[in-house]
Amino acid sequence: MTETVTYELYYWPSIPGRGEYVRLALEDAGARYVDVAREPHGMAAMQKMLRGDGARPRPFAPPFLKAGDLVIAQTAAILHWLAPRLGLVGASDADRLAAHQLQLTIADLVAEAHDVHHPIASSLYYDDQKPEAARTAEHFIKDRIPKYMTYFEDVLVHSGGDHLVGKTTSYVDLSLMNTLDGLRYAFPHAMARFEPRIPRTVALAAAVAARPRLAAYLASPRRLPFDQHGIFRHYPELDPP
Amino acid sequence: MTETVTYELYYWPSIPGRGEYVRLALEDAGARYVDVAREPHGMAAMQKMLRGDGARPRPFAPPFLKAGDLVIAQTAAILHWLAPRLGLVGASDADRLAAHQLQLTIADLVAEAHDVHHPIASSLYYDDQKPEAARTAEHFIKDRIPKYMTYFEDVLVHSGGDHLVGKTTSYVDLSLMNTLDGLRYAFPHAMARFEPRIPRTVALAAAVAARPRLAAYLASPRRLPFDQHGIFRHYPELDPP
Repeated sequence: MTETVTYELYYWPSIPGRGEYVRLALEDAGARYVDVAREPHGMAAMQKMLRGDGARPRPFAPPFLKAGDLVIAQTAAILHWLAPRLGLVGASDADRLAAHQLQLTIADLVAEAHDVHHPIASSLYYDDQKPEAARTAEHFIKDRIPKYMTYFEDVLVHSGGDHLVGKTTSYVDLSLMNTLDGLRYAFPHAMARFEPRIPRTVALAAAVAARPRLAAYLASPRRLPFDQHGIFRHYPELDPP
Repeated sequence: MTETVTYELYYWPSIPGRGEYVRLALEDAGARYVDVAREPHGMAAMQKMLRGDGARPRPFAPPFLKAGDLVIAQTAAILHWLAPRLGLVGASDADRLAAHQLQLTIADLVAEAHDVHHPIASSLYYDDQKPEAARTAEHFIKDRIPKYMTYFEDVLVHSGGDHLVGKTTSYVDLSLMNTLDGLRYAFPHAMARFEPRIPRTVALAAAVAARPRLAAYLASPRRLPFDQHGIFRHYPELDPP
């Protein structure tokens, strides 16, 4: 299924962030791609595209993917376009639509997970919004993680198999694995308490991470670690025991 | 271009919210649709679908669209699927992808506009997060409205015409009009100061609102007003003169 084009992924070079969702699909499929901003002069190339020196409409923000003349921004749009070419979604319109709406719901969760440590403004430091972040984290742990993650668990329960969509692994399985990983990194105490409620999700994530190409990728230096600069951040004060 | 299927739109019956983006496309195309939750027993029908008694995967949240056996959730996914059927996007893959990524960027702005009045948690009342909202609003007005809206203005400037994508009106033109409308409602003082910087957007919004079917819709009781319960809310204290 893999085409012979070399994909160009553009994303911030030092965090997994939203780019990781695209990277996981490319890696799992064994696709040829360049992680542009991690190459020499790559940041300059990315900034040039963001200024509009490449295709139009210019991307609003990374990640974006270049494939031949096509430039696609927005993580979920990239995956919706890319996955059929990588064999990472079923062939039917119904499967593709189901996967896309699930990925968009993951995107909503990812945005909320970011806003836990930046509830007032992305342009401010965490240190400038710590009391607000503490309140936000309490609600995120109590309400939002359960709401989103039991939803995906329910989708798994009713999918009639071991995958979110269809009978084989799709990119949303990879995305759910990465999201669970991120939540575990950011909120280890909360997730240790919560995970018994989502056994199918936990099993899916383990199965995805054991796929040969993904296991090799996850153990490689290409996999960037979560840290205090990305979307999923661990601040102990936001995750009380 | 319009198919003969009757679409079923499911959305909260008392606010324009995210459902409005779908409604505008349906109205502009003169499509046959039922606004289910505004009909007798419609809320019960919507709740049933949200519980998973309809198609799988069940929607995470409204809006969702039912077309025959297909149920599609997530505003941007609905429009991506619906627009070619309504003649509200160009036929090429490049146009469809460009429109989709712009709609997803509008969705990001809409989520941020909501979080201005609910920076800590959606589950709390505005009154429980007023000081935080005041800080968030300051940054939203100073940084985020300009960042997003000058982006769309720039897309218009470089589109080679009077539309965001292609040479004719697409659903993202409708969506940008509605978003400008919402921002004007929520932040009248800030927008009065800011709008001189986005003349093409202002002209596009006026042209869209004057399209015969949309003008008739906007003047009809089907068009729900913005109010203090939706996504775009006007709290005078968040929009100082």
